Amino acid sequence: MSALPKLDYIFHPESVAIVGASDGVGSMGSMFLKPFLTQGFKGPVYLVHKKKTEVMGMKCYPSLKDIPGPVDYVIVAISAFNTPDLMKECVEKGVKVCTFFSAGFSESGSEEGIKLEHKIVEIAKTNGVRIVGPNSMGIYCPSSGLYLSSGLSSRTGHLGIVCQSGGNAIYLSRISEMRGVAISKAVSYGNGCDINESDLLEYFAEDRETKVIVVYIEGIKDGKRFFSALKKAADSKPTIILKGGKTEIGAATAASHTGALSGSTNSWNAIIKQAGAIQVNDLDELIDVSLAFLYISPPKGRRVSIMGVGGGVSVLSADSLLSSNLSLPPLSDEVKKKLQRRRHNPGYIYTNPIDTLDLFKGMDEFRNTIEVLAQWDEIDILIPHLAYDIMGIDPEIWIDSGLTRNIVNVMVDCIKRIKKPVAIVLHYASLPKTYQAFSEELRICCEGGIAVFLSMEAAGNALDKFIGYHEMRS
Amino acid sequence: MSALPKLDYIFHPESVAIVGASDGVGSMGSMFLKPFLTQGFKGPVYLVHKKKTEVMGMKCYPSLKDIPGPVDYVIVAISAFNTPDLMKECVEKGVKVCTFFSAGFSESGSEEGIKLEHKIVEIAKTNGVRIVGPNSMGIYCPSSGLYLSSGLSSRTGHLGIVCQSGGNAIYLSRISEMRGVAISKAVSYGNGCDINESDLLEYFAEDRETKVIVVYIEGIKDGKRFFSALKKAADSKPTIILKGGKTEIGAATAASHTGALSGSTNSWNAIIKQAGAIQVNDLDELIDVSLAFLYISPPKGRRVSIMGVGGGVSVLSADSLLSSNLSLPPLSDEVKKKLQRRRHNPGYIYTNPIDTLDLFKGMDEFRNTIEVLAQWDEIDILIPHLAYDIMGIDPEIWIDSGLTRNIVNVMVDCIKRIKKPVAIVLHYASLPKTYQAFSEELRICCEGGIAVFLSMEAAGNALDKFIGYHEMRS
Repeated sequence: MSALPKLDYIFHPESVAIVGASDGVGSMGSMFLKPFLTQGFKGPVYLVHKKKTEVMGMKCYPSLKDIPGPVDYVIVAISAFNTPDLMKECVEKGVKVCTFFSAGFSESGSEEGIKLEHKIVEIAKTNGVRIVGPNSMGIYCPSSGLYLSSGLSSRTGHLGIVCQSGGNAIYLSRISEMRGVAISKAVSYGNGCDINESDLLEYFAEDRETKVIVVYIEGIKDGKRFFSALKKAADSKPTIILKGGKTEIGAATAASHTGALSGSTNSWNAIIKQAGAIQVNDLDELIDVSLAFLYISPPKGRRVSIMGVGGGVSVLSADSLLSSNLSLPPLSDEVKKKLQRRRHNPGYIYTNPIDTLDLFKGMDEFRNTIEVLAQWDEIDILIPHLAYDIMGIDPEIWIDSGLTRNIVNVMVDCIKRIKKPVAIVLHYASLPKTYQAFSEELRICCEGGIAVFLSMEAAGNALDKFIGYHEMRS
Repeated sequence: MSALPKLDYIFHPESVAIVGASDGVGSMGSMFLKPFLTQGFKGPVYLVHKKKTEVMGMKCYPSLKDIPGPVDYVIVAISAFNTPDLMKECVEKGVKVCTFFSAGFSESGSEEGIKLEHKIVEIAKTNGVRIVGPNSMGIYCPSSGLYLSSGLSSRTGHLGIVCQSGGNAIYLSRISEMRGVAISKAVSYGNGCDINESDLLEYFAEDRETKVIVVYIEGIKDGKRFFSALKKAADSKPTIILKGGKTEIGAATAASHTGALSGSTNSWNAIIKQAGAIQVNDLDELIDVSLAFLYISPPKGRRVSIMGVGGGVSVLSADSLLSSNLSLPPLSDEVKKKLQRRRHNPGYIYTNPIDTLDLFKGMDEFRNTIEVLAQWDEIDILIPHLAYDIMGIDPEIWIDSGLTRNIVNVMVDCIKRIKKPVAIVLHYASLPKTYQAFSEELRICCEGGIAVFLSMEAAGNALDKFIGYHEMRS
């Protein structure tokens, strides 16, 4: 077994101090201390505050050096002006990593901010202390009990997140969890003054816990090194990237957000393609494509079969998949026979997509349809789908009768016994009446280890990129 | 005042019969009878069933002719084979309109189904009975107490819906309501064997209640007449159209769904453009674009200002709007002065978009920012936005403290007093923890008569089409 990657120690501190934690709603105490209190951490957690003696019921030390034991990891949430002094204290205390929530550095564009950032980097580099940030939310590593914010899952998994924006890092972490994907480590690295996107890509390339890497990046400082790190990552595992600040103004916003130099869209597209990474266009797509890699076995081709309830949704679903370079072979005579033998109901659509209308009469035919399609060797991937809001039926009837729950249970049960690659589409339910069933049933599918997409368009797009990745490498 | 449009009487029957209603979950009784029972209808509602004497506590008549009073409007939910006989009964009874839920006609592709459809059309045309359908959900006209299904709003409004698919018609009706848009009339016309898309477009063109028309169409039978009807509609009011079955397989599915001949994508694009209608790509976009027409006063240009919380979401929002042909002028020195005078907080982004970070300290500066931007005459439209899930803050803190509610209340309150065109973006909240606040706060905005979009991409796209419409006509 090879050694752990170089940066691994930053994810596994034995003791933590939060400098600048305070009480109150929206305070640093709530954001950074709460997860340590509610989700646990194996080692000691200390608070440092110049003036306060207690925050959220915990003792505060006036400075780092007053803490009785060693401190590995410091969360910095004080004014930027005071951070050079704090960095010196960190050196004296033997701190290994500082994650800087503090902002007001190079991203501010002010001479003073830029100078301050140079100063903390200088102290860090001279003394071997590493910095995550500034202007970041730090590190999420559920196996170590480190969280970007309260309310994140303590499950550990296989998705690694490299994210320049703190808000986006938290979004990706939360939505991944909702979609059944647990995180190995996520890093919100902000201005990236010391540990940057390239360091993190190299780390995740080697990290054995991480099987898929997603990247949200606004800009880079060293293009050559970035390309090499991105290539290393993409060579080792699927690496999916969203570039923020693609437009001119987006880039100006990014500069003001994280001090990033965005580069031209064309050069970005070329870099990403050459490195073998997968480019996407929004945050949800990062998760959709990851989901395909984590939960779907690579299909042999692009031939899809869709089955679900609803005529209009079937028509639009076909349009979506075909627009994503997938094909929908017409049902073969043999398949038709196997399906039609069991019913003659007007209103059904017997093409591919199949509209399986009459589920109120029982689940046998629905189950049979999945099984017949699973055995049909002219298709490479099966997509059963369920639309909560696009129904010719009042949601009260559709849901309260337990029908959607039954459908989902049958889907999950069948899929477990199927060898063919499968994805489920639960079309997003946005009505208050349908949302609850949707979210509970999404959880049932996720717990069954199934890739669920929230629209046919999202499924088509993720499958296109997933299959394209394997085609390029075969 | 001009006369009512020719077809108006089909929306205002004085008596209704449901033929084929039955009990049980998912039954026609639940679907079609329930709204009459729960939401009321001014006239008598009768049930007809060959064998049953009672359904859902209501008396059933063995046939139409046994009904004691006149019947204007018949909902047909019996086997296709029995519909020619029923049509004859309808003629005898003096029925004016039949809406056919029954399927198994031309859309089945079978000779028998096609023959049956010809037969009912012949009886209808010879005797002046009109048919909506077959294979349709019928008519939604809240002012008359007609519903496509139970669970639809009884509010009446200004959006007219012409929809070939029943499921999609119900989706559009439900989601419009959620987005604050009430319906004048919606018609799910299925195979359109008698009353078809062209009749309905001509009707909605003249209908005074309808201010915006949305159309979901899978295919047409008479291209020339359709073009003329679409042009008439688009000349009279904004007409937004989604073509289902754009792809080859989508078209095959549409044929099987509603018997529609889809036509080539190119000819569709040309027809829609020439007619002056607005083409969109999915059901939600139909509603997004309608919302702009119904709730936003036409901006003078394409210059936008965005303000909200979150760095990453600001960067991606800028990218989305710029991709939609809108511009984001940089803050003028005067505007900067007015904003910066009030705060110097690291972490804010002082470009356009503006990231207004520190709302826990109060709403005054947030309110001031909206007011300053509203007075800035270098922008044409203002977009305050709020992301529930893309926050560097635990939703429990963010929502439970009442902060998002405060933000939304301030937005609504400010917008009421602003003359500049405004749209709000409440970025979709998909987490169980955030969904409830999101949906409640969406309702607050909608009740304030404000156009709310659920992503910056959706807002940008709708505004692009909305402004483009006015540019073409100026």
